[in-house]
Amino acid sequence: MSPIPTREDKFSFGLWTVGWQARDLFGEATRPALAGVEAVHKLSEMGAYGITFHDDDLVPPGSSSSERDRIITEFKGALDETGMVVPMVTTNLFGDPVFKDGGFTSNDRSVRRYALRKVMQNMDLAAELGAQIYVFWGGREGSEVDFAKDVRSALDRYREGIDLLAQYSIDKGYGMKFAIEPKPNEPRGDILLPSIGHALAFIAELEHSDMVGINPETGHEQMASLNYTHGIAQALWAGKLFHIDLNGQKGPRYDQDLVFGYGDLLQAFSTVDLLENGGVDGGPTYDGDRHFDYKPLRTEDMAGVWESALANMEIYLSLREKAKAFRADPEVQAALAEARVEELARPTLGDGETYDTLLQDRSAFEDFDIDRAREQGYGFARLQRLSLEHLLGVR
Amino acid sequence: MSPIPTREDKFSFGLWTVGWQARDLFGEATRPALAGVEAVHKLSEMGAYGITFHDDDLVPPGSSSSERDRIITEFKGALDETGMVVPMVTTNLFGDPVFKDGGFTSNDRSVRRYALRKVMQNMDLAAELGAQIYVFWGGREGSEVDFAKDVRSALDRYREGIDLLAQYSIDKGYGMKFAIEPKPNEPRGDILLPSIGHALAFIAELEHSDMVGINPETGHEQMASLNYTHGIAQALWAGKLFHIDLNGQKGPRYDQDLVFGYGDLLQAFSTVDLLENGGVDGGPTYDGDRHFDYKPLRTEDMAGVWESALANMEIYLSLREKAKAFRADPEVQAALAEARVEELARPTLGDGETYDTLLQDRSAFEDFDIDRAREQGYGFARLQRLSLEHLLGVR
Amino acid sequence: MSPIPTREDKFSFGLWTVGWQARDLFGEATRPALAGVEAVHKLSEMGAYGITFHDDDLVPPGSSSSERDRIITEFKGALDETGMVVPMVTTNLFGDPVFKDGGFTSNDRSVRRYALRKVMQNMDLAAELGAQIYVFWGGREGSEVDFAKDVRSALDRYREGIDLLAQYSIDKGYGMKFAIEPKPNEPRGDILLPSIGHALAFIAELEHSDMVGINPETGHEQMASLNYTHGIAQALWAGKLFHIDLNGQKGPRYDQDLVFGYGDLLQAFSTVDLLENGGVDGGPTYDGDRHFDYKPLRTEDMAGVWESALANMEIYLSLREKAKAFRADPEVQAALAEARVEELARPTLGDGETYDTLLQDRSAFEDFDIDRAREQGYGFARLQRLSLEHLLGVR
Amino acid sequence: MSPIPTREDKFSFGLWTVGWQARDLFGEATRPALAGVEAVHKLSEMGAYGITFHDDDLVPPGSSSSERDRIITEFKGALDETGMVVPMVTTNLFGDPVFKDGGFTSNDRSVRRYALRKVMQNMDLAAELGAQIYVFWGGREGSEVDFAKDVRSALDRYREGIDLLAQYSIDKGYGMKFAIEPKPNEPRGDILLPSIGHALAFIAELEHSDMVGINPETGHEQMASLNYTHGIAQALWAGKLFHIDLNGQKGPRYDQDLVFGYGDLLQAFSTVDLLENGGVDGGPTYDGDRHFDYKPLRTEDMAGVWESALANMEIYLSLREKAKAFRADPEVQAALAEARVEELARPTLGDGETYDTLLQDRSAFEDFDIDRAREQGYGFARLQRLSLEHLLGVR
Repeated sequence: MSPIPTREDKFSFGLWTVGWQARDLFGEATRPALAGVEAVHKLSEMGAYGITFHDDDLVPPGSSSSERDRIITEFKGALDETGMVVPMVTTNLFGDPVFKDGGFTSNDRSVRRYALRKVMQNMDLAAELGAQIYVFWGGREGSEVDFAKDVRSALDRYREGIDLLAQYSIDKGYGMKFAIEPKPNEPRGDILLPSIGHALAFIAELEHSDMVGINPETGHEQMASLNYTHGIAQALWAGKLFHIDLNGQKGPRYDQDLVFGYGDLLQAFSTVDLLENGGVDGGPTYDGDRHFDYKPLRTEDMAGVWESALANMEIYLSLREKAKAFRADPEVQAALAEARVEELARPTLGDGETYDTLLQDRSAFEDFDIDRAREQGYGFARLQRLSLEHLLGVR
Repeated sequence: MSPIPTREDKFSFGLWTVGWQARDLFGEATRPALAGVEAVHKLSEMGAYGITFHDDDLVPPGSSSSERDRIITEFKGALDETGMVVPMVTTNLFGDPVFKDGGFTSNDRSVRRYALRKVMQNMDLAAELGAQIYVFWGGREGSEVDFAKDVRSALDRYREGIDLLAQYSIDKGYGMKFAIEPKPNEPRGDILLPSIGHALAFIAELEHSDMVGINPETGHEQMASLNYTHGIAQALWAGKLFHIDLNGQKGPRYDQDLVFGYGDLLQAFSTVDLLENGGVDGGPTYDGDRHFDYKPLRTEDMAGVWESALANMEIYLSLREKAKAFRADPEVQAALAEARVEELARPTLGDGETYDTLLQDRSAFEDFDIDRAREQGYGFARLQRLSLEHLLGVR
Repeated sequence: MSPIPTREDKFSFGLWTVGWQARDLFGEATRPALAGVEAVHKLSEMGAYGITFHDDDLVPPGSSSSERDRIITEFKGALDETGMVVPMVTTNLFGDPVFKDGGFTSNDRSVRRYALRKVMQNMDLAAELGAQIYVFWGGREGSEVDFAKDVRSALDRYREGIDLLAQYSIDKGYGMKFAIEPKPNEPRGDILLPSIGHALAFIAELEHSDMVGINPETGHEQMASLNYTHGIAQALWAGKLFHIDLNGQKGPRYDQDLVFGYGDLLQAFSTVDLLENGGVDGGPTYDGDRHFDYKPLRTEDMAGVWESALANMEIYLSLREKAKAFRADPEVQAALAEARVEELARPTLGDGETYDTLLQDRSAFEDFDIDRAREQGYGFARLQRLSLEHLLGVR
Repeated sequence: MSPIPTREDKFSFGLWTVGWQARDLFGEATRPALAGVEAVHKLSEMGAYGITFHDDDLVPPGSSSSERDRIITEFKGALDETGMVVPMVTTNLFGDPVFKDGGFTSNDRSVRRYALRKVMQNMDLAAELGAQIYVFWGGREGSEVDFAKDVRSALDRYREGIDLLAQYSIDKGYGMKFAIEPKPNEPRGDILLPSIGHALAFIAELEHSDMVGINPETGHEQMASLNYTHGIAQALWAGKLFHIDLNGQKGPRYDQDLVFGYGDLLQAFSTVDLLENGGVDGGPTYDGDRHFDYKPLRTEDMAGVWESALANMEIYLSLREKAKAFRADPEVQAALAEARVEELARPTLGDGETYDTLLQDRSAFEDFDIDRAREQGYGFARLQRLSLEHLLGVR
């Protein structure tokens, strides 16, 4: 039977996911607005643990100060009643026409200043709600015309913005970590920091780089034909997997935001295995919330919305169980050994060895039995077959 | 008329490019082997300045020691006669079956040791020939089966390998810089360090990171739908554009290695502009050789090979002239000003300003004339039109 | 200098293109509404010849009958004043939530009936305005969940719809031709009739297939990595290129609707050459309007809108001039001959030859000089180089 | 437990699949040659039913007449011993350099004549071995340079070739059906007949179109971001699914030829469901052999080759069982009804209804309860969730 999600599984959803009214580039909204309070209650009942939001998701732009206060008070009330938490908050720097050329990297300096203010205002709210992670998705930071954007200046401004906000968080004692979310394109023709790698490289240049990591989204990497599991592994290697956005995507095309697993299911399996069992002890590599950033299909009414929300959690849990069974299967253990997966953890040089001793080791080169090495099979076909049998539940 | 390449333009070619015999996955070679000496003479006559190679390109695997010596001697003779230089050398760690699971990151430790030895041997030759750049393309470092490769271990081993070889270069006084070449996939299902960003992020973790940069290839980024000009701009921003591989590609599909410009021509234009005029003074941002890594079409005989080699240089020079004319055009200058491209170089905060003063600046937020900012046009359509007119030569 | 568009060039624009208010999936509109009358006048001044529309573009949904009449009267007045024509009209079967699962192929039969009625109503208006082409873009005909859509039933219903509407046009004496516009995905996960080929194959199964052709859009084919020039050539071969949608796209990603040429510029060149010079006499292969279906960048105000509209026409004209010069260049003529491009028009069998005589021709097989054929070069590199020189204007 | 393949499952393999020596564009062969006889025996033991081949797979090019005879005699002997059949045969018109510009559409007419002869020779052998299907994959029919190939002439020549060969088969009484295999690109930059749709449209123009259908390959469609299940559904709708090539692919990139299911597993599930249960009675829609066209990973030795061959069959059988269980599940039945999947089979017009009666039906338009239709959910999220639960085996 399908597993049942519980609070301990640390599942969270963006308010903008179940609340998406399904207005797209080609058509009008098909669903009514969903109040934050209702989302909190419903998700809590379904076994989720947290809810996240952009400033404008919770408080509609243009709200008066008193409306804003009322909304926030009610939202906090719902959190209190349910025990739901707000693990992450983020800023909408892409919806308002003012951000049409970006927020931190708009060619218009006054827009950049406005953007920083909008973020600081929302960070205050995030802190008040106890969010530990603050996400930056720069969906409008980019260009369609190469000559219209000086990328090196843009990266300077991006860094200036993040540095300033990091200082703000530190000085205010908010204790937040920042997480940058990469995306290759859409809605801009080309977006800055287009992949996990580009974001990690950018972070290395920041003043407070220790408090900045990434929030990679499954589909965003797959839109660029990149392996999401490999990407988060590199982020973990760099100590920078601060948050995660799980969903589904069918390769390079428009951003689909499908249910997690409903894209490249095999890669979803290895993603869950890495998160849950990828540690040196076979334990979790990531302890934050398992956050879904998806869009319920536009054909669905609210019943379909909740059905798909549940599907995300169920699929994650099913894959988690399968990953544990996979690891525990003696035949898999044998196949992993045969494939020498662990041998890669062993340094190429021996203890105390240098290039000098390597140069003197004739067995490494002059007398190397290269024919054996050429002819040997690596046993990956067997791992492939076993992993699919576990995934399909036919072992 | 088409411009004529000269030595001052610093064009170089891989020996494996004009020497490609056009054997592909589906068919046999269509062209005879090309001797290194002949390639040197012919390229020199055509106006090139340098030639580069993998160890196995120059000296066929399996050559005896005396054959090796003879080949190298003759090659050096050709360099002397022509004045051609060898700006870059690299290692073939992908062709021999021994590397089927990679070189530095093979699950088989003995293969990793063999790979390091193969590189060191070739670095000695590279140093002897005066190469200043040593390139690492890890085409077989990767996997098709996620469970078969522990990516974090693989990155440990990759780092171990690069660190060791960097130390070797330092100790030997070779004075080389290393340049890592990213690629997303092919021949492996997923390759490690798949993009410019991932390679930059990896470099930040190296022991001798100062001597390691990247060698990005146009088509490799475009296979992942990434903007090559943006990518090299980020590399320049990080001080890491150590070498460059120019060619053409028609988006996400097999690695085409077309003639430079014969893919995304508009992006080739902005690439050349960035390399030649992208500096703060409008000057070059990159002073290494302009290196072409392409494959002459399989339909061609040697006449077609040289025709396409010439095409690479001509197109680069044509784009260089157009880029200069574009920058010098008063209407373009006006359009760039209108688009406020330079305003992005101005810090978002004023001299001595902090987030505190920004918070107190009511004009930045509370009194910001947001409607003006929402309604303004950015003038990018005009830049787009002008750039295309220059590219087409209709202004 | 850039060429000036005139009415004789037969350029047309969708009302929804210059009228796009730039609301996208991630953000609000950045531009005001544009009245049809204003679009007619402005496009006419710029040298366009025609304007096209979806029913809902011209008459906002929900308009009263008298409002509808007033809008149409004013629109016709503007056409009369300017001499602009309406070469094509189409139906919006994708914007209203009622069409969220498609129009002709919605699982809800009542929606399908409503869709047919909506089309017939608009065909009456199209006929009244003299439109000769009626386009069908089934952007919502498709699915995200394979099990939710019986594709064979869907094609039955699609055929039923087109057959009925063809009969309606015939009986009413409207004399229209229908043109189906393929698209692979977006806004549905997978759209039915995803490419030129799929649409042509579908048309072959229609009752009135003679009056149904296709309206291929540049970017829609390129989203699927397909060569647009090849695609329209196959449509011409089948006698089915009834209309055309020109724009720009950067390969497989979201539907960009860039200015024509501002994507794969080389392919835009061969597209224009095929349309203008592809006939057996070197003459046009297509005589309908040159229709642009693009979206002005969201960063632009109305000045940028008109700038980009002009760019579409200028680029087309520039490419047309270059294509004529290319064909007229003696070196190109020589290169085409060398590449034996025309030899392909010569039947493989001789006059009166059959497979029997071919079997008896020893020169064709047993005595075939296969080594010559293996070693010969095809001269395509030269054609590539010459075409790029013409495109760049450096010859 | 994993299901065991038997002869009744009608699984077949290309000799070139298990026999692939793993030489690719970047590296040398990693596996020894595999004799046809050995492949027949081994596949038979594993439960396969058939083997297929290109002429050059079975008889190495350059073999003497007596060698050819010996090879064929031994191969037939192996078939007799095992009871294995040869359901399909095809021609290699891509490996020899003579075909570098194509076979049927080479610009060199003498190559076209040679190609036709090569096919006829192999058709004789195919007939002798009882093959009912003859496949045409035109991997070299295409171009990289648009100006180098007149596509309309090329389609004329393609048609000429197929027409001639069809006549040959008819006259000889071979009783074969032809099946064209589309592919978008690789090894040519753009291949003619790039998708299922383009091939179907081409077939409609043939003289003997009734005996020509298609042989679609999973990965070839997915390289163009096309839905394979939708594609074969359109082929079935047109009565043209004559043969099938099953494998795996990770979206638009190089042709991976992975094990079936080891790409888009969800689509593999719907593919098997369509083939096995897609009929009006829930029965099979296709009764030919289930043919795998994949490449064992280059990292593997022969043990890995057989492991992966088995994986293809096991995965197909597992998906077949799951598809049957899915269809039989009462909750699925309810969800399909809720989603009105069958309602799409009901004509949009009633019995005897015409557009006239539809126009008079006020309930269809004027009085249509459009708000209900806008607000209703289609229940696709539930189908999605249920299908994934069945696929994962957690129901």
